[in-house]
Amino acid sequence: MAKDIPSRSEDYSLWYNELVKKADLAEHSEVRGCMVIKPYGYSIWEKMQQALDKMFKDTGHSNAYFPLFVPKSLFEAEEQNAEGFAKECAIVTHYRLKADPNKKGKLMVDPDARLEEELVVRPTSEAIIWSTYKKWIQSYRDLPILINQWANVVRWEMRTRLFLRTAEFLWQEGHTAHANADEAIKETELILNVYADFAEGFMAMPVVKGRKSEGERFPGAVDTYCIEAMMQDGKALQAGTSHFLGQNFAKAFNVQFTSKEGKLEDVWGTSWGVSTRLMGALIMAHSDDDGLILPPKLAPIHVVVVPIFRSEEELKKITEKVDELSSALRKQGYAVKFDNRDTQKPGFKFAEWELKGVPVRLAIGPRDLENGTVEVARRDTKEKQVMKLDEVATRIPKLLDDIQANIYTKALKFRDEHVTKVDTYDELKRVLDDKGGFVAAHWDGTVETEAAIKEETKATIRCIPLDAKEEAGKCIYSGKPSSRRVLFARAY
Amino acid sequence: MAKDIPSRSEDYSLWYNELVKKADLAEHSEVRGCMVIKPYGYSIWEKMQQALDKMFKDTGHSNAYFPLFVPKSLFEAEEQNAEGFAKECAIVTHYRLKADPNKKGKLMVDPDARLEEELVVRPTSEAIIWSTYKKWIQSYRDLPILINQWANVVRWEMRTRLFLRTAEFLWQEGHTAHANADEAIKETELILNVYADFAEGFMAMPVVKGRKSEGERFPGAVDTYCIEAMMQDGKALQAGTSHFLGQNFAKAFNVQFTSKEGKLEDVWGTSWGVSTRLMGALIMAHSDDDGLILPPKLAPIHVVVVPIFRSEEELKKITEKVDELSSALRKQGYAVKFDNRDTQKPGFKFAEWELKGVPVRLAIGPRDLENGTVEVARRDTKEKQVMKLDEVATRIPKLLDDIQANIYTKALKFRDEHVTKVDTYDELKRVLDDKGGFVAAHWDGTVETEAAIKEETKATIRCIPLDAKEEAGKCIYSGKPSSRRVLFARAY
Repeated sequence: MAKDIPSRSEDYSLWYNELVKKADLAEHSEVRGCMVIKPYGYSIWEKMQQALDKMFKDTGHSNAYFPLFVPKSLFEAEEQNAEGFAKECAIVTHYRLKADPNKKGKLMVDPDARLEEELVVRPTSEAIIWSTYKKWIQSYRDLPILINQWANVVRWEMRTRLFLRTAEFLWQEGHTAHANADEAIKETELILNVYADFAEGFMAMPVVKGRKSEGERFPGAVDTYCIEAMMQDGKALQAGTSHFLGQNFAKAFNVQFTSKEGKLEDVWGTSWGVSTRLMGALIMAHSDDDGLILPPKLAPIHVVVVPIFRSEEELKKITEKVDELSSALRKQGYAVKFDNRDTQKPGFKFAEWELKGVPVRLAIGPRDLENGTVEVARRDTKEKQVMKLDEVATRIPKLLDDIQANIYTKALKFRDEHVTKVDTYDELKRVLDDKGGFVAAHWDGTVETEAAIKEETKATIRCIPLDAKEEAGKCIYSGKPSSRRVLFARAY
Repeated sequence: MAKDIPSRSEDYSLWYNELVKKADLAEHSEVRGCMVIKPYGYSIWEKMQQALDKMFKDTGHSNAYFPLFVPKSLFEAEEQNAEGFAKECAIVTHYRLKADPNKKGKLMVDPDARLEEELVVRPTSEAIIWSTYKKWIQSYRDLPILINQWANVVRWEMRTRLFLRTAEFLWQEGHTAHANADEAIKETELILNVYADFAEGFMAMPVVKGRKSEGERFPGAVDTYCIEAMMQDGKALQAGTSHFLGQNFAKAFNVQFTSKEGKLEDVWGTSWGVSTRLMGALIMAHSDDDGLILPPKLAPIHVVVVPIFRSEEELKKITEKVDELSSALRKQGYAVKFDNRDTQKPGFKFAEWELKGVPVRLAIGPRDLENGTVEVARRDTKEKQVMKLDEVATRIPKLLDDIQANIYTKALKFRDEHVTKVDTYDELKRVLDDKGGFVAAHWDGTVETEAAIKEETKATIRCIPLDAKEEAGKCIYSGKPSSRRVLFARAY
């Protein structure tokens, strides 16, 4: 067990918080609810950004940038959206500070610098973007518009947790405009698949693709698709959402186009986003009591090399070998760290790099040099093996692929073991309390039933899985007929 | 001359504004002083980011992320810095909107949701970052800290211009902490050189490296280094700054470390930044009356191919050749656009891609196919040549290198022709009015003289060049002795 971090079974929540801090990923800032993302944490986020950005571009999207601020009159234009975010908005009301006449060296808000119209710090950018699209769209020839933005957003959350729920967070938000519903729905689904491919292929985190119930839908959307992941404590985590907006924002902002047939029509829209919340998901999906376990595809360091030496002379000889080996791995695109500090013992270094989740650790001492070998430890299973030095450059890439696959398989097994079918409300409650995970149950499709179950059990409908089988049944709560099971869970 | 854009000689300022909009780089938003960076403009910014980010990482820096908001009490801690930015700060005072009881469907700021302490939207991040570094630094072993952040910042400017001066802009800001002054000064200079190398090597824009006078220094800095560029209208543009902060922020935020010798000392700091302002510089340094001229190293599209065809059949044959040729260029890392729209004539396409500054245009028709040739036009000089199709893949890369070099050489020649030595105040005024550019003159080193000259001529001291020769002279304004010339100019 890593120093100063409780085990998951002791206190999962504290384990998470301490791990995020001890592994140098993020910490709380002096600003209520806002975090500082530290260099090691940020470098993982950069890897996520790069992978996602490429996927967006490969599917025809471009990046752009829209203002941080949304004038109140635009913010309130789409009423459902405005209502959904009004309670958690940071509002700019003034544009100047001045010297405080009563406190030497202190400043105060200048009452003469009040804005005529208040500005909302964007909690999401539909309003500012659709008010811009209005200027860009006249004809069907201007469509589709396929734009993504990497940005910070602010939602004034009362209870915050590093990465999972912070007042300011980083994200990408896609906003697309289309000439018909079909194309917009295809876009919504395309992005859902991009998100799922990213979660499974890069984060090694299996997800369920589905639709949100009406009660959990994005404010202003006609339909919200999502990917839902399962954490090790049996709670679900929404990892990404893709919204079919219908013509709601086009109507609110009066965005119309002349169709091929010469008719004036409202534009169809989608929006979709993933955020630094994925960092929380990545940590909670895989890590253990010794620290992070990072999938190689998102690890900032793939291989750490720890020299075992007693003298400068020994270190020098080891360094020569390590330089060769590192260079051979770097040429193949792997990031290698040689931890040659003389201020720390090997055992300390082992623990530190385990804490930080580096997938592969090599240890090499004088005896290894004699034998032409190196000790190879994998982070995920803790297995060690002795490898010939001249095989390292060819076998490590294969090992990293194995680790990526193994982390996914392990998470998938856990997830599959944590999907439980129930047919009664009592069973639902029992499974939620005793086992957690997703609970597949029949539901009558009403907001009222969902709200009542949430009130009593703290579980929500995470999604109506896209691959849910048609199956006649009865709602576990109301007894009314249902045609497919939905997934309930307690969630982050 | 491009459609709807005035020439530079007619109205340089309007030429710039219209070019930015017509070339799809950026536009004004619904939010006062904030811009929308459109996909084509943003793709140039992304190229800038990639190049700079690599240079920062290659010199040992890591990225991180700090909060958007700065609590007022932290903001005011370093008094010079606070005073410098107080007059242009967006201030968050409330965290909630509620339904307006007097206007159906409208929202109002909830007076019950007033923040206890106001939050300043960061105009720069020294305050929030040094209040964090305080927690990270105890010993000399924790130093140096070499961190960069890509972020948005807000400065409530009254007169704004796209890219050059906007209320919100995008930038990178480096913030480093060191154990001694020497190391911090070396860092300040290292980054100045990175900026100069980027400006000259990527933007093809020659710069003068220098130090700011006291009057133009960054608020809170001991010394501000800068790179200054010359635009085609004879006005200077500050393209990047690197500040030696001394121990000012360490003292303001009480950031101390135990030295190797066991003494408690204040930490030394630097900060440095470049912003989307560089987009303005790039545009104004090179472009002509027909549109943008982009240096190949920052061009999102290197080569555009325009087919000349009368029938589907012809287009099909051309397309086959173009596919081959594009693939050969793409393999070498070049971005190729095949403009095969059948809705626009070749002449229209030529003008459009000239407007957008694509460095090389290929035109290919049925006769070219017969002859195995293609027409190659370079954007910078407008020169055309006929090239053999099978030489395109080897000769275009060389041509792009030539264009990059030529754009730089042309800008350097212009800049060098616009540095004028003067020895009297009258001469200074005359050169500023008649010719513009940098004016090298003696100055007595006082804030008062600089202010008086600025008041009368609107010219400021752009910098004291690092390579200024020691040369005894008399201040053109006060007649007092001076030991080197400084550069005056009117500036953006």
